[in-house]
Amino acid sequence: MKNISILGSTGSIGKQTLDVVRQHPDSFQVEAMTAHRNKDLLLEQIYEFKPAIASITSKEDAEWLKANAGSETTIYHGMQGIIEAATCTAADLVLNSLVGSMGLLPTCQAIKAGKTLALANKESLVAGGSLVMKLAKIHNVDILPVDSEHSAIFQCLRGENTRQVSRIILTASGGPFRTLDKNQIESMDPSCALKHPNWSMGQKITIDSATMMNKGLEVIEAKWLFNLNSNQIDVLIHPESIIHSMVEFVDTSVIAQLGLPDMRVPIQFAISYPERIPLKTEKLNLSSLSQLNFEEADMDRFPNLKLAFNAMDIGGTMPCVLNAANEHLVPMYLEGKVSFYQMAHIIEKTMHKHKSFVYESVQELHEVEEWVEEQINAMVQEL
Amino acid sequence: MKNISILGSTGSIGKQTLDVVRQHPDSFQVEAMTAHRNKDLLLEQIYEFKPAIASITSKEDAEWLKANAGSETTIYHGMQGIIEAATCTAADLVLNSLVGSMGLLPTCQAIKAGKTLALANKESLVAGGSLVMKLAKIHNVDILPVDSEHSAIFQCLRGENTRQVSRIILTASGGPFRTLDKNQIESMDPSCALKHPNWSMGQKITIDSATMMNKGLEVIEAKWLFNLNSNQIDVLIHPESIIHSMVEFVDTSVIAQLGLPDMRVPIQFAISYPERIPLKTEKLNLSSLSQLNFEEADMDRFPNLKLAFNAMDIGGTMPCVLNAANEHLVPMYLEGKVSFYQMAHIIEKTMHKHKSFVYESVQELHEVEEWVEEQINAMVQEL
Repeated sequence: MKNISILGSTGSIGKQTLDVVRQHPDSFQVEAMTAHRNKDLLLEQIYEFKPAIASITSKEDAEWLKANAGSETTIYHGMQGIIEAATCTAADLVLNSLVGSMGLLPTCQAIKAGKTLALANKESLVAGGSLVMKLAKIHNVDILPVDSEHSAIFQCLRGENTRQVSRIILTASGGPFRTLDKNQIESMDPSCALKHPNWSMGQKITIDSATMMNKGLEVIEAKWLFNLNSNQIDVLIHPESIIHSMVEFVDTSVIAQLGLPDMRVPIQFAISYPERIPLKTEKLNLSSLSQLNFEEADMDRFPNLKLAFNAMDIGGTMPCVLNAANEHLVPMYLEGKVSFYQMAHIIEKTMHKHKSFVYESVQELHEVEEWVEEQINAMVQEL
Repeated sequence: MKNISILGSTGSIGKQTLDVVRQHPDSFQVEAMTAHRNKDLLLEQIYEFKPAIASITSKEDAEWLKANAGSETTIYHGMQGIIEAATCTAADLVLNSLVGSMGLLPTCQAIKAGKTLALANKESLVAGGSLVMKLAKIHNVDILPVDSEHSAIFQCLRGENTRQVSRIILTASGGPFRTLDKNQIESMDPSCALKHPNWSMGQKITIDSATMMNKGLEVIEAKWLFNLNSNQIDVLIHPESIIHSMVEFVDTSVIAQLGLPDMRVPIQFAISYPERIPLKTEKLNLSSLSQLNFEEADMDRFPNLKLAFNAMDIGGTMPCVLNAANEHLVPMYLEGKVSFYQMAHIIEKTMHKHKSFVYESVQELHEVEEWVEEQINAMVQEL
């Protein structure tokens, strides 16, 4: 029996994690769960999974939960509540599916508490990769990827010597705007960007898929997870999202992981690791699909991908700036305050203004993020 | 430095093995080599690789080699010469790329001598799988597959628990007759069957690809190599031969091995195992290929595949009968004595006549093969 703490249990990844737990009541038990605003769903989840700890962002929602949940569950709130869930003694594994760079602190705290970390919060590694990987090494903690691409790479590397890797190839669906030209993309309504062709995901990551910033963040995440150089990471457009990613070795042999687009597969692999256990879901049938397609990534139409590679090459605090700028701009894009390509333009300008430095703490990164927020607000006002 | 004995050094696999050795003079040394009839090429190879042992089928050719090769190489002939090469003390690894079921005895002898076996002679396992695997277990010997499909499966299984495999999917190009109907296939000249779309291989295996008997033999080979049940092996047509095969696990995750069709990759993996070492050859570029296609295997147009599954299900000596019948019929097809579908028909009739039994020795299998030869010769005369 593995005790799991789920940070972000009411989000897309959190709900699918609970689906997996539901299929395997003898293997997994939910020790803690946290939510941002969806108190009704969190209460339902508390009733069903009876965690020892639950936490929600606002104090008011926490009071409501205390009044309605059973006495088996201790209710917390705010970042302190998330940290409680990330570090509680009984948890064997923490699944971090928080959205955005606010996931970094709980990631660091879970590692310091010696918890195996199933990481869906890619921003932890994008913003704070050097810190997170250093902590994981010191505390001898496994970081198990939950992103389908990184889970694929992780699976392809099983039993292999990582020094014999020549490169990894992250596949990308290309998103809803893959076949459009720049003028068409710029004129699309944000609601179109929310229609991902293959994956059902949260709003933020779906917009990031439309701009390909998501793939850029994944490139940086992969660099840290698999200890790679920039020139060892390639992106390949694969519209069907069946090959989830690949590893090429020095002997030219390529190992790939495939499956239908179903996040429960990588989620389950992360929480059942090192075992594979049965999952009740549809199986891949390549003959019924009949065809898989591939094309090169286009950094002209999707400049965010190029910016992410640049930020990775510069290193230090620059990926944190890239990510923070994007986090502020995506809601503005959804509200119609900035256009598709204005996002990339403003991220680029913010990166130019920033002088990257080697950080040592989460606090330093938070200060950088505050600076980014000021810059962006000023730039957007001037538009 | 690994000392390698190559059985069948002048054939397609043998020559490509020597290409690999040539690229890595500090890693591999050729200890022994054997050839069937190509004495000129064998002599060249002796000059270049200076093996301690060389052997050729006929005594006459062996005399000629003795007269022309240097004194560093001891020349043998016949099956005894092959056994010398398969068991010589200084060899760490024996690569068996003999053609046909005559490869079984050297396979058994190499295993008994404790040699790691790189196996390209699939007939060893098709005809004598239970015996070969039992010997390998007793003598604690690794059998490393050289066939691209089995090498793919072997690579996909690295670091995995084989009990968590749900099935393997052997890919097949479909051969030169993939898109033809039965009448068209029956009317094709054997020379057309020799034109394989992707792989450059020997004559026997190329015809076996056209009839899909090759895939059937591979199914049986896979059963033994990976300790699978019949219902755990599927065949998928993939005309581009880029995905060399796949493994599906209980969690629905599929791991695949990909690469350009180049036998030197699986050959090198077998002889460098467990390491991967650089290979100078063209790399896979999926965006330039742009598309991979898949379709179901058609057992009506390619009945040999069905017969192979049947022989595997019956077990015992039946796969030996299937293989022996096919080995006799392929040269007859090339000579125009039997048609494409007459081959399948005669194999099926021979299988019906045979009462399968559990064998214990190579000798019993040889007797079965002699019976098969008689049956086939009689049937072909009656056509």
